[in-house]
Amino acid sequence: MNTVELITKKRDGRVLTEAEIEYLVKGYTAGDIPDYQMSAFLMAVYFNGMTKDETVALTQIMRDSGDVVDLSAIDGIKVDKHSTGGVGDKTTLIVGPVAAACGVPIAKMSGRGLGFTGGTVDKLEAIPGYKTSISEQEFMDQVNDKGISVIGQTGHIAPADKKIYALRDVTATVENLSLITASIMSKKLAAGSDAILLDVKCGSGAFMKSQKDAEKLAELMVEIGKADGKETMAMITDMEQPLGNAIGNTLEVQEAIDVLKNCGPKDITELCIALAGMMIYLGKKADTPEEGMQKAQRALEDGSALEKFRDLIEGQGGDTAIIDNYALMPQAEFKLDLEAWDDGYIASMDAMKFGLASQHTGAGRERKEDEIDMSAGIVLAKKIGDTVAAGDVICSIYGNDMKKIQKSLEEVRNAVRIGIKKPEKVDLIKKIVK
Amino acid sequence: MNTVELITKKRDGRVLTEAEIEYLVKGYTAGDIPDYQMSAFLMAVYFNGMTKDETVALTQIMRDSGDVVDLSAIDGIKVDKHSTGGVGDKTTLIVGPVAAACGVPIAKMSGRGLGFTGGTVDKLEAIPGYKTSISEQEFMDQVNDKGISVIGQTGHIAPADKKIYALRDVTATVENLSLITASIMSKKLAAGSDAILLDVKCGSGAFMKSQKDAEKLAELMVEIGKADGKETMAMITDMEQPLGNAIGNTLEVQEAIDVLKNCGPKDITELCIALAGMMIYLGKKADTPEEGMQKAQRALEDGSALEKFRDLIEGQGGDTAIIDNYALMPQAEFKLDLEAWDDGYIASMDAMKFGLASQHTGAGRERKEDEIDMSAGIVLAKKIGDTVAAGDVICSIYGNDMKKIQKSLEEVRNAVRIGIKKPEKVDLIKKIVK
Repeated sequence: MNTVELITKKRDGRVLTEAEIEYLVKGYTAGDIPDYQMSAFLMAVYFNGMTKDETVALTQIMRDSGDVVDLSAIDGIKVDKHSTGGVGDKTTLIVGPVAAACGVPIAKMSGRGLGFTGGTVDKLEAIPGYKTSISEQEFMDQVNDKGISVIGQTGHIAPADKKIYALRDVTATVENLSLITASIMSKKLAAGSDAILLDVKCGSGAFMKSQKDAEKLAELMVEIGKADGKETMAMITDMEQPLGNAIGNTLEVQEAIDVLKNCGPKDITELCIALAGMMIYLGKKADTPEEGMQKAQRALEDGSALEKFRDLIEGQGGDTAIIDNYALMPQAEFKLDLEAWDDGYIASMDAMKFGLASQHTGAGRERKEDEIDMSAGIVLAKKIGDTVAAGDVICSIYGNDMKKIQKSLEEVRNAVRIGIKKPEKVDLIKKIVK
Repeated sequence: MNTVELITKKRDGRVLTEAEIEYLVKGYTAGDIPDYQMSAFLMAVYFNGMTKDETVALTQIMRDSGDVVDLSAIDGIKVDKHSTGGVGDKTTLIVGPVAAACGVPIAKMSGRGLGFTGGTVDKLEAIPGYKTSISEQEFMDQVNDKGISVIGQTGHIAPADKKIYALRDVTATVENLSLITASIMSKKLAAGSDAILLDVKCGSGAFMKSQKDAEKLAELMVEIGKADGKETMAMITDMEQPLGNAIGNTLEVQEAIDVLKNCGPKDITELCIALAGMMIYLGKKADTPEEGMQKAQRALEDGSALEKFRDLIEGQGGDTAIIDNYALMPQAEFKLDLEAWDDGYIASMDAMKFGLASQHTGAGRERKEDEIDMSAGIVLAKKIGDTVAAGDVICSIYGNDMKKIQKSLEEVRNAVRIGIKKPEKVDLIKKIVK
């Protein structure tokens, strides 16, 4: 096979065979195909797309570029959950314990993050003592023993995706459905679960701005999961404004615990009950998604979900006292409030701008080598549709660097609009794709 | 400026400013922008094209990446000629002396070649003693003195094109009108002539397979030349079958001399008169192209063109005795004939296949470091439309390696079709673009 001919084939809109895609991905991962040929190929894919079969092949080849985790030593149907990412998205910290409390084994590998805040693994490290990196045996044992474990992704999951993603990032070839799907699903398929629930965000703070694009991505990912023999479903959920009230690491762990105590913000509670309900259904611990949601709701009300969270922390060496004393987690030295400059309704809260403002407090990494300020971030006091009077606190910025906090304050000032008309209510859950 | 943003801009179909194109080309030439970003950009250009203004900017920035030759020390209007390349194209060796004989100063820098045969400079080196690399002063002096000089291109002409072309070649981004135009015209504009005649080939042996594509390329190149203040014209000419009868280096020099002696093949003679006529007109030595053609015809008939060729060789240190004794040039040891396998008409002679067969005799380089066999190549005894009887020689393969010759013979066997119907006559000159 010849790389230039394969680039030409895709450039001319023809369909590559599985063997051709394998040649490209393996050759690139091994360093035999140079970056400049792969980037030209990726740009050709950007323009001409890939068929479903090509996407299946790409995903599976990328999956097989590294370790494929074997979770068969864990009893029961393992259900994984993946969010395409948004601002204030701490759902893993909540739906994991909820689903586990309802009998679904949760064996979750999560990532760190470049972006608005750290990833789930970073957030868990706000809990003193919590070990995100334990051996595979300890991981399995804990799931069999406690019903839940959440650890960092190993370095051997889908290295082809890692290399290709880094290239896409610097060559304007990120925004393609097949490439996004293969990137996400190769890692999910390699993570070894039996079923997958995808939370596909749409709106200003999400990668997919429109519901139509989010639906297309969800449909393709569900197809790819099923083609691999895994039960796969997706929910399209809103990301026009931050999810819940907290953005940050410590701040999000606190809010997650609030939800598990059944006293968290309404929107994130509602979403987590829906996601967990679906996981309980996929894990065959409920006959319908509705029954799953009822069970999830009950697990929040009867304290069993919170108990599972305690089990999780304890099992991984963390200090469970933080559950009742948030001050045991890193706390920020400074706080500035954004006050309403007028009477009216909150008309919009641009999720992306809030995300960037959070990153700029120190809560998220701009470069891989950056250290995260666990205590920094933003807490919303108001959300879209709430009434405000001039002087009311809309949100508070937390951090340890007054300059950064001031900059973030200016940014959130530009992220909020106050209007005189009550805005229409937006559905948090827009669609289920299965 | 940010490279990813510029790639994105082109990818999304927007128009780049001159400053943005300059940032990309200068950055890439200097090594600040890596290959993988440039190749993604080039693939985006492949899909979304460039406007005329963008193409002008790209051409001029590439021109200015190296030396821009100053020919003002040469009297008169300097006319350059460029062919987009074909099989058996030895026109430079003919039209140069013809136009010079009619008073047009010819100060020509030509290239070497990867491909079917060497470039013009390689062909000239079939003449013992001919120096293709002389100083700029000697070059100018010879044009002022003899009216003509043909030398190799200096290394400092459009280095940006050199680097970008090498990348396009391995990333399937060659076939784009604006990129082709900028590549050709940046070198032409840097070569310092006052007027430019373009010979745009179309057909199986040419880069542009269809007349429509050839016309588009011609129109764009003429526009770009004019935008730079140079009188520019183009002729669209046929390349369905090899031009003339000879393909090779020594073989083509011999045929060029035959034409200059006014006893060469009809097709190439006709084309050279047309091209030279246009150059004479562009050089203001004729009031109309028709008058130019009459003068060119006369220069072949009265021996003045042949005299100019003698001057050229003599001026550059070559052995003028080759003009009357071709055996003084490298001659092949072996020759094999392709004989007609049937009675009928030659229905087609695929120029591309003949070109490749010629390359495989050793007449052309497959890799940059290959050495050319000056004596190798192919001579046609028949051309499209000629009648043949079984056993007639269709063409002869020359070379010094019997294995290679045999392989080429097989290849040309597959390049020729004999039919029972006389094929329609194809116009050699299809269109003039000005």
